[in-house]
Amino acid sequence: MNWKEKCTTSTLSMKSSMIRELVEMTQNVPGIISFAGGFPSPVTFPKEQLAELYKEVLLQKGDNVLQYGSTGGDLPVKEAIIKEDQLSISPDELQVCCGATNGIYNAIKTFIDPGDLIIAEAPSFLGSLVAFEAVGAKIIPVSMEHDGMNIEELNQVIADNDNRKVKFIYTIPDFQNPTGITMSSEKRERLVEIAIRNNIIIIEDDPYGKLRFKGKSYPSVLEIARNKFNNKSVVLCVRSFSKLLGPGMRTAYAIADKGIIAYMNSWAQKVNVTNDRISQNVVAAYLEKGLMAGQIDMIKKTYKPLCDRMVAAIKKYIPANIKWVEPEGGMFLWLELPEQMNTDELFKKAVEQKVAFIPGSKFYPTGCEQYNGMRLNFSYPTGVQIEAGIKRLAEVL
Amino acid sequence: MNWKEKCTTSTLSMKSSMIRELVEMTQNVPGIISFAGGFPSPVTFPKEQLAELYKEVLLQKGDNVLQYGSTGGDLPVKEAIIKEDQLSISPDELQVCCGATNGIYNAIKTFIDPGDLIIAEAPSFLGSLVAFEAVGAKIIPVSMEHDGMNIEELNQVIADNDNRKVKFIYTIPDFQNPTGITMSSEKRERLVEIAIRNNIIIIEDDPYGKLRFKGKSYPSVLEIARNKFNNKSVVLCVRSFSKLLGPGMRTAYAIADKGIIAYMNSWAQKVNVTNDRISQNVVAAYLEKGLMAGQIDMIKKTYKPLCDRMVAAIKKYIPANIKWVEPEGGMFLWLELPEQMNTDELFKKAVEQKVAFIPGSKFYPTGCEQYNGMRLNFSYPTGVQIEAGIKRLAEVL
Repeated sequence: MNWKEKCTTSTLSMKSSMIRELVEMTQNVPGIISFAGGFPSPVTFPKEQLAELYKEVLLQKGDNVLQYGSTGGDLPVKEAIIKEDQLSISPDELQVCCGATNGIYNAIKTFIDPGDLIIAEAPSFLGSLVAFEAVGAKIIPVSMEHDGMNIEELNQVIADNDNRKVKFIYTIPDFQNPTGITMSSEKRERLVEIAIRNNIIIIEDDPYGKLRFKGKSYPSVLEIARNKFNNKSVVLCVRSFSKLLGPGMRTAYAIADKGIIAYMNSWAQKVNVTNDRISQNVVAAYLEKGLMAGQIDMIKKTYKPLCDRMVAAIKKYIPANIKWVEPEGGMFLWLELPEQMNTDELFKKAVEQKVAFIPGSKFYPTGCEQYNGMRLNFSYPTGVQIEAGIKRLAEVL
Repeated sequence: MNWKEKCTTSTLSMKSSMIRELVEMTQNVPGIISFAGGFPSPVTFPKEQLAELYKEVLLQKGDNVLQYGSTGGDLPVKEAIIKEDQLSISPDELQVCCGATNGIYNAIKTFIDPGDLIIAEAPSFLGSLVAFEAVGAKIIPVSMEHDGMNIEELNQVIADNDNRKVKFIYTIPDFQNPTGITMSSEKRERLVEIAIRNNIIIIEDDPYGKLRFKGKSYPSVLEIARNKFNNKSVVLCVRSFSKLLGPGMRTAYAIADKGIIAYMNSWAQKVNVTNDRISQNVVAAYLEKGLMAGQIDMIKKTYKPLCDRMVAAIKKYIPANIKWVEPEGGMFLWLELPEQMNTDELFKKAVEQKVAFIPGSKFYPTGCEQYNGMRLNFSYPTGVQIEAGIKRLAEVL
């Protein structure tokens, strides 16, 4: 049986999310301090509360939640999310999905034919980049500045490409993965204006937006489009409970024009029918009980000192020719080394010195790699590990 | 914003699973007796046991199950499934997925390019047919006989088509949806032999196989391929806990050659990362506690009298020129009316008479519809409803 000759070309050439492999590689090194993972801290998981809620939901409405449900999510779950986020949308403008990745997947299946174009921040979240490439999109990178995507460059790449083929501008405006950078209010508005003018949908990937532990927050790109530009279809926003309750629950949601959501639901019907109905109803119960505000507060209080510790250690140990932007939330900080340096090579030396990070090259579309960045995660290690790990890293540098 | 012009052709032309709409349509008719749904009976859901297990799993390993996990499923979950099914496979030959539909989706993404061919029983499960068509496959129908797929016809369609393009033979060998028919042992063996000879993968969709409540069981197509033909790659088998514990848990699994599973995992990484980790670990706990045998026994004891009641009512009320095969398990029974009859038209009359079924035309690939069949579900209505509903249906006929 030669099954391999029957695989599609895209299957055979598909890139995996190398980060997983790198993280696994470093997990077995004794005494290593790892800034490589992208994991929320398990100390923030509200295990006891969730244990009670799972039990309660099953006992109170097991007949319902164990049965098949609506593809785009249960109506009461959607209503709880809409209320929590104070959204002025109807339930049919929302899809409950199996993690943010699943929402993004349903969106790209709705719009992307092989050869279509997606404009993305570079660096950006690898999980999305590999999904874009897997469905045949070509990614056009736009570089990052200290206050978000380079908007002049965005204008330029739009002018340089066939508009019919440019389907999305992909952005993570708050505490971006991997850079930790937040897009300024002014840039958000320019982004929306440019997208509307060119008839291009913005995917606002927003997994960390609620985890701002310092500075003042900006309106989401979704809010700007809807409130300032009175436009319901230019932004497709994806949010998740992964960094708030736990990624294992695989509960996230996409907000978009209701016509787009209908097509995304039609894809979801083929892809997984629904996400887990017990978990989505537990999320709803959690929100209905008013527990989320306290939970988010606790996470911020957990991550802020870790971030502060990392910032302090960087100031203390890391050479001044290495550039970085202090994050105001989220889980990541990015170091930009001098251009001639290569963090793929540094990675091996760092692991020998028992400290790990993700080399920056992993966060670029195929063929557009840059090698002088590195992503550091501060949500998973302890404060003591952060201090010691940054010191080790400085020695490697 | 004109987003619609940016959608793919396959999105704009995509068929939905019409069954959902039909079921919803009939739900609001007062006093209707519905044989339309494809739902397991909620009285079979082990709500109390699951409520305790969800709580236990979260309290005992919340830090683990609320975190990100392995794309293809957690190792202990896979091991519990392998033990339960007495499979002679390694864990890397198994993918835990978000319902059987999700496993099938990962499989078709691995193998199907637009224009590729899938041979499928006709009629067959609509959810799979629309997924095949959504990814661009052309479906070649092979008719059903009382003992399963017409094997002569299978040979013929394979001979008639470009072998490089024929990627799958899709079958539901046990208590098929929609016909309730089971494939004979002899046909299973011939199917495997033909598939190996022609280098075509069989997708064995097996959601009901464990729900045999009468007659003697046959080895699965997977077992035949592995044990009798010593071939690990010709069958890709998908099984699910949806009809055993509840579809809301979205926990199913695919078994295939480990190379195929690796590619399917690579797709899953883009599609939804993992299925719900709490539910998959609850399933594992359920299996480890040895609860499944009793659960399956209870379901069979629930469905058998319902099926018996439907069979008796059909014998009593339904005209003799209508053909049907008595199911030995599963959830469905199929009536084949004389060829000139059209169940799409009968459907409206039936709903007026307050009885509902799914018209047979819904279970055929686009363009190959036949109109003289109807699917009746016996797992959801009560015995009294079954008796009364079949009587009403006979009047309509």
